[in-house]
Amino acid sequence: MDKKVRVGILGLGTVGSAIPFLLKEQQNKIEKMTKVSIEIEKVFVRNIASKKMIADKFNLNLTSDISDILENDDIQIVIEVMGGTELAKESIITALKNKKHVITANKDLMAQHGTELEKIAQENKCCLYYEAAVAGGIPILRTISNNYKVDKITSVYGIVNGTTNYMLTQMTKQNWTYNEALNEAQKLGFAESDPKNDVEGIDAAYKMVILTKFCFGMGLDMKQVSTQGITKVTLRDIQLANALGYQIKLLGSSKLTSKGIITEVSPLLVPNNHPLASVENEMNAVFINSVGMEETMYYGPGAGANPTATSILSDLLSVIELMDQTENILPFSSFYEGLTLANQAEIMSKYFLTFELENTEKMIEEIKMIIDMTCSNVVHFQTQITEGKKLEMIILIDKITSQQLKELIDNIRNKYKINNEVSYKLI
Amino acid sequence: MDKKVRVGILGLGTVGSAIPFLLKEQQNKIEKMTKVSIEIEKVFVRNIASKKMIADKFNLNLTSDISDILENDDIQIVIEVMGGTELAKESIITALKNKKHVITANKDLMAQHGTELEKIAQENKCCLYYEAAVAGGIPILRTISNNYKVDKITSVYGIVNGTTNYMLTQMTKQNWTYNEALNEAQKLGFAESDPKNDVEGIDAAYKMVILTKFCFGMGLDMKQVSTQGITKVTLRDIQLANALGYQIKLLGSSKLTSKGIITEVSPLLVPNNHPLASVENEMNAVFINSVGMEETMYYGPGAGANPTATSILSDLLSVIELMDQTENILPFSSFYEGLTLANQAEIMSKYFLTFELENTEKMIEEIKMIIDMTCSNVVHFQTQITEGKKLEMIILIDKITSQQLKELIDNIRNKYKINNEVSYKLI
Repeated sequence: MDKKVRVGILGLGTVGSAIPFLLKEQQNKIEKMTKVSIEIEKVFVRNIASKKMIADKFNLNLTSDISDILENDDIQIVIEVMGGTELAKESIITALKNKKHVITANKDLMAQHGTELEKIAQENKCCLYYEAAVAGGIPILRTISNNYKVDKITSVYGIVNGTTNYMLTQMTKQNWTYNEALNEAQKLGFAESDPKNDVEGIDAAYKMVILTKFCFGMGLDMKQVSTQGITKVTLRDIQLANALGYQIKLLGSSKLTSKGIITEVSPLLVPNNHPLASVENEMNAVFINSVGMEETMYYGPGAGANPTATSILSDLLSVIELMDQTENILPFSSFYEGLTLANQAEIMSKYFLTFELENTEKMIEEIKMIIDMTCSNVVHFQTQITEGKKLEMIILIDKITSQQLKELIDNIRNKYKINNEVSYKLI
Repeated sequence: MDKKVRVGILGLGTVGSAIPFLLKEQQNKIEKMTKVSIEIEKVFVRNIASKKMIADKFNLNLTSDISDILENDDIQIVIEVMGGTELAKESIITALKNKKHVITANKDLMAQHGTELEKIAQENKCCLYYEAAVAGGIPILRTISNNYKVDKITSVYGIVNGTTNYMLTQMTKQNWTYNEALNEAQKLGFAESDPKNDVEGIDAAYKMVILTKFCFGMGLDMKQVSTQGITKVTLRDIQLANALGYQIKLLGSSKLTSKGIITEVSPLLVPNNHPLASVENEMNAVFINSVGMEETMYYGPGAGANPTATSILSDLLSVIELMDQTENILPFSSFYEGLTLANQAEIMSKYFLTFELENTEKMIEEIKMIIDMTCSNVVHFQTQITEGKKLEMIILIDKITSQQLKELIDNIRNKYKINNEVSYKLI
């Protein structure tokens, strides 16, 4: 071996345990291709006794004193897989200030404190890599950073939360209600007992903050991402969308418009023939429109021990390649652009709108007239009688702002009693 | 600008012309991110007069003497986009021997003479990059080379020929015959007037040779790839497959089996819920199974001027980053593994088999018995009457070798007169 690199790991949960496993599996290949031998010097865990079995299996040296890693001169690279934001943030800062390169899978942390942490990394001429923070096993951040330097991205759409994608897929396929899908996701361990971060779109918003930085060179605060989860998506909405040839997917999107960048997370209607429509269950996919490559999609597991650990090991090899060039450590993404945020209310979108009213056939023409007067781009107008004998209207409108849509609904509501009104944007 | 790099281009066809266009479009971003200014020093074309307009538009300096580029000491990087294998090969060798880095989009050349050319590149400490040779705009080779170093690929499947994928999609959607689809593909410029390379699977086989090298570290001769095109795929086959929930796709595949590597190109049945099933028209996609990332797919345009030129420019930036490290120029893929080829005849696959016989209901049970005696893994057995009043049998068999399948068909044929017999592997 030409070189030996010593690594410290913070955390030995599901992902942490997959790192020594994969390193052992791929040891020969890595050593042959890189001429580097990687050694796990120490692993920080809160409770040593509970991790004894896995430590023995991979011959790991455990410590419950985190400074054994952060202040250890033998360790050149620290991998943070504890999760949480407080101890993780503090530890990463200490590691960077002690001139250790850092790899983390912590999306919460990087979305909320990325700018501050990257600054500290740069000041200390250290790498801070976090491929695993977005779409687990898909090498999406590195691909954007490397391959889109020569291209201009105009929009990025992602199914970046596996839990909600699993739930929506099962609601669609099994005719399950939201609660049935959530219960099953919890049973399978896809959803936490408190599922807020997933089902309210917060986790997806974290990832969109990071993707927006990589795709558009623009740092966002979480509050700049308009975030709506799937808690209000009903089986009825899904069935209506399916009948029109669409799937409902929780999508994060970030778009370059003539008025600036717009980043949001919300359930959207995706046409069945769009590649994102067939991304099922806990899989993730990121779809990119750009001037040069036109349209590309990157598909893979959004979570899971081995995929996430593989992304971490990819970062590890990148850091090892770079670490001897201490004079010129570039950030993970070195793309910065002085872009502004667009005003959500001004952006035209295609919308799906449905509501019920008392079954009075003569209203149909009147309502159709109100709609035609408010907006000129109705591309689909359909009425049907529901099982509950209500008259249901289903409308697709092209190019309307959210403000105009609100006005349209208010206009109808002023004259008629409407119920179960639901609207979704289309991709 | 910290650095100026001078480039020579061989060829100014569709892809060649997109290079100055995209370089101009992205000039600011590239210069800001890389601190390098890229200048196109000279472009070789056979007929200067015919390229005057495009040359004027981008202020290009044309030459019809290729040595103006290959022997030009000011030029550090040569981009070959002429196509063909003779002049292209000779020019690349001369460029490399003159210590110029080379980028090419030439899949025919790299599949057939890659090993020889890479050897010359290494001897001269030069880069030889060819991202655009496989799946046009999808950054697949660089992704495999960079991100799978820490992973072990077990199989790769690709829709890597846009022309045939367009034809099969249109046959499926429009109920077109093979000839109707071919005519339309030729009209749209997707297929050449002599479509042999596309429809006989040769182009896909070129790409599988390159993908096999990147995924498994194994160099193949074209004759080691079992290659079958789509010329025998009929509308009837497609309809039968659709009825069972499958799409017929021309797939290149390379698999690591317990008996070695097996690489083939053939029309396969892909289940509708597989991500490759929804890759339509001229789009390409490469699906990878691996130990770490589990399953990932990379989707995008397989050809086209801008996507192909974007891949070339990505190579260009990689070469520029590497070119000052003359002591350690690694090949585009530095993965080598001493693997053997498996014997096709020994590999078990899942098969779709269909044939017609005279409408004699009593034969059904007899034939079913022959099938059950020959193979124990029949997972679907169906008979139906065709429009022509023939009895049609449709059979899915799990785990059977091609040799066993052949024996089965021979056994049936020995006793009964069968027609229109067709078989396909399943993915």
